[in-house]
Amino acid sequence: MEPASVRKHSLLSMIARNGGHGEHSPYFDGWKAYDRNPFHPTQNPDGVIQMGLAENQLSFDLIEEWIKNNPTASICTPDGVGKFKDVAIFQDYHGLPEFRQAIAKFMGRVRRGKVTFDPDRIVMSGGATGASETLIFCLADPGDAFLVPSPYYPAFDRDLRWRTGVRLIPFACDSTNNFQVTLAQMESAYAKAIEANINVKGVILTNPSNPLGINLSKETLTSLLSFTFEKNLHMVCDEIYSATVFKSPAFTSIAEVMQETECNPDLVHIIYSLSKDMGLPGFRVGIIYSYNDQVVNCARKMSSFGLVSSQSQHLLASMLSDEVFIEKFLEENSRRLGKRHSRVVEGLKQEGINCLEGNAGLFLWMDLRHLLKEPTPDAEMELWRVIIKDVKLNVSPGSSFHCPEPGFFRVCFANMDDHTVEVALQRIREFVSRGNKNGDDKKHWRKRDLRLSFTSRKCDESLISPRQIMSPHSPVPQSPLVRART
Amino acid sequence: MEPASVRKHSLLSMIARNGGHGEHSPYFDGWKAYDRNPFHPTQNPDGVIQMGLAENQLSFDLIEEWIKNNPTASICTPDGVGKFKDVAIFQDYHGLPEFRQAIAKFMGRVRRGKVTFDPDRIVMSGGATGASETLIFCLADPGDAFLVPSPYYPAFDRDLRWRTGVRLIPFACDSTNNFQVTLAQMESAYAKAIEANINVKGVILTNPSNPLGINLSKETLTSLLSFTFEKNLHMVCDEIYSATVFKSPAFTSIAEVMQETECNPDLVHIIYSLSKDMGLPGFRVGIIYSYNDQVVNCARKMSSFGLVSSQSQHLLASMLSDEVFIEKFLEENSRRLGKRHSRVVEGLKQEGINCLEGNAGLFLWMDLRHLLKEPTPDAEMELWRVIIKDVKLNVSPGSSFHCPEPGFFRVCFANMDDHTVEVALQRIREFVSRGNKNGDDKKHWRKRDLRLSFTSRKCDESLISPRQIMSPHSPVPQSPLVRART
Repeated sequence: MEPASVRKHSLLSMIARNGGHGEHSPYFDGWKAYDRNPFHPTQNPDGVIQMGLAENQLSFDLIEEWIKNNPTASICTPDGVGKFKDVAIFQDYHGLPEFRQAIAKFMGRVRRGKVTFDPDRIVMSGGATGASETLIFCLADPGDAFLVPSPYYPAFDRDLRWRTGVRLIPFACDSTNNFQVTLAQMESAYAKAIEANINVKGVILTNPSNPLGINLSKETLTSLLSFTFEKNLHMVCDEIYSATVFKSPAFTSIAEVMQETECNPDLVHIIYSLSKDMGLPGFRVGIIYSYNDQVVNCARKMSSFGLVSSQSQHLLASMLSDEVFIEKFLEENSRRLGKRHSRVVEGLKQEGINCLEGNAGLFLWMDLRHLLKEPTPDAEMELWRVIIKDVKLNVSPGSSFHCPEPGFFRVCFANMDDHTVEVALQRIREFVSRGNKNGDDKKHWRKRDLRLSFTSRKCDESLISPRQIMSPHSPVPQSPLVRART
Repeated sequence: MEPASVRKHSLLSMIARNGGHGEHSPYFDGWKAYDRNPFHPTQNPDGVIQMGLAENQLSFDLIEEWIKNNPTASICTPDGVGKFKDVAIFQDYHGLPEFRQAIAKFMGRVRRGKVTFDPDRIVMSGGATGASETLIFCLADPGDAFLVPSPYYPAFDRDLRWRTGVRLIPFACDSTNNFQVTLAQMESAYAKAIEANINVKGVILTNPSNPLGINLSKETLTSLLSFTFEKNLHMVCDEIYSATVFKSPAFTSIAEVMQETECNPDLVHIIYSLSKDMGLPGFRVGIIYSYNDQVVNCARKMSSFGLVSSQSQHLLASMLSDEVFIEKFLEENSRRLGKRHSRVVEGLKQEGINCLEGNAGLFLWMDLRHLLKEPTPDAEMELWRVIIKDVKLNVSPGSSFHCPEPGFFRVCFANMDDHTVEVALQRIREFVSRGNKNGDDKKHWRKRDLRLSFTSRKCDESLISPRQIMSPHSPVPQSPLVRART
């Protein structure tokens, strides 16, 4: 806390001055490196490949096809413009009824019909970023704390803490049990927090996990929910990757576990979004689904600060209501994610690199412990610098996810085309083989060896990274945390 | 402040429990009355007419025509869908460069080219609601205060205070000088606040004024800016109604005044939006334009909580860049607003009702002091209840705008068709004449007298209020503050 006199004479707020946005992290430094020198198959084949961005670009052809076939879904077609006025002035914070209904149905479908969602509990927000912050504003006061299993999504530090003043208390998962969350870890973290006189308000789970790319099991969820019920803690489940599961075990939502476990529904809340599951982060659809009436009421009022554009609501209401399309989209998207995942896992395996066995998400958790000089955070950072500067792959080091065990890296695999994947794998191959030849002297590895030949390959421009269209120059130094949620 | 023990054992946050959202106001009660019984020319001709909603529905035909003529502007047409992917994944918090450029140019055009705006200072936010809150989060800490001339926009209490913990100190304008803001009032309010040991961080002006429908003069702006410079206070100007000026005097932006007045640019910030000037509140376009680099930087990071949908950014970038269209739109929109304003003012005048002479906005400031039983807030509320329950017009009482002088009401005139305006004026006519016949016993006025005949008039369904499409049922009692900004 600053002295009162400093506060009083500062032009800006403490929030503006406290650095709580959390951008000083290798997670975002990697993005900077990419932004300075982005890979392009023909124009910049030596550039950095972006593998730090959890985007799903694998199924846009399906969505584009649907749009062509459904001109009335948009208010900007000759067929749909008749609704322009009604949609353009719609700013009711409940959202278009058909949008809420479609979202509720979609959420139920993603959970394989095992639970249903009430459209009247669907609260909109500006992406999962806005939804997460809104929920925390409803649940906790400055200084209050939530327990979070680590490794966790780096921008939680911004979303959940920055403006709310709430604290996050990580409790570490590690490789000894394949990074499974356990009740014992949580109990221990809770006991320590209580001993330190911290007011713990709840637990935040990300399921499927970002960055691990795995689900929480039903048994684990049941035990954690029972614990939070017993301690009168909120259970917040971030389920924004629920439709990215591409192989068994199937995803289990906290909504399903609630039906079979003694709990207090007033304490259970789900964060959702269409950014990952439909691959539409630009549309900024964040959802809070709470079983607590007061939270629904309060969050809805707060949603005025970040409503979803009614233009986007209108389009999505139509798209998500098309059950035949959604069925096909979810199946095909899952198939493509699985195929891409297998290709990357297999390519890495050929170079002696293992990954945590994942079944979900847009990323995998790569184990490079054997390439560390020593098992320390410093050695992890040293290796990461080589990967980003020489191998020119922007992968994210485990430390940026608050992972306590050095040597793990998150590798995003769904934000690029097949060709870029092959370039990335080829670079890793060269890196590893040069490393093997030169012992520890990996600095001898040279970038020019990693350029793939283009003579026999037609470049698919439509699959080039969209970063070409965004090179903004701010009057102030550009922040790397440019994306709202990644 | 609650006792620590209450805080500690409460399930929800203080913000969720403190009622700071500010919906307990006749401003919102009037909306409730409308929502329960909305007027419809054929289906519910005895219903309440919504004159409490500052929406601009007068120029949608122009926008719809533009959309039909510009199919490539949308990502949902056969001509535009090729850009779907690039736009749908765009979540850079700087916004699409072409969107920022178009907004900057539009803001300059609205100010008649007297100032230019730097696209790199355009920060997006979720509507003016989100923009206002974001700016306050950047500028002030809980307990800090801003001076605001009253009457002021009721939802400032939500937007600026609720989650930020910042205080608003109103200083009253009244009819003695036609509600002009003066330096003397502000100096006095500032002196009192300092005496009370309050940390005043700045001043917030709404120009043109909501609810008054008038501009601040250049001279007034100059004197206020000099004062804030001298005291090292922030000057926040909410200019969301700048293109609604329909007659002289012309609008003067703080951006123009800055060029000619000694000031510290680091202390000057503009709030903007397309909700009023383009009539697109559903698109949730809020803008912070700050001359302070740190604020631009910080607000941009915060914009992740409420980015504008990239689908809407893409469309608006095209539309606002079409200079020929924008020129025509602004001129025609202004002409239509002026015509509608004149009709309502004249209609009221015929019944002996005067309004503050306005030249801007989507509302007028109606003087009903002569109809009050006595010049008290209670009498104002009594008259308001008669107007809403018997005359069935949802106008908003001055008290809800923190107006200290009883007897004034804000009347919105741009959110309805010509026919509805005539029904409203006819109801007022009947009310006044019945009042004159019956002396003070206005309760004898009967609603059935106010139903207009429809025999000779074709009902224009396209101009019916859009409220038909939104009758949401929440699991909790519906809040009247359903719109994000009004």
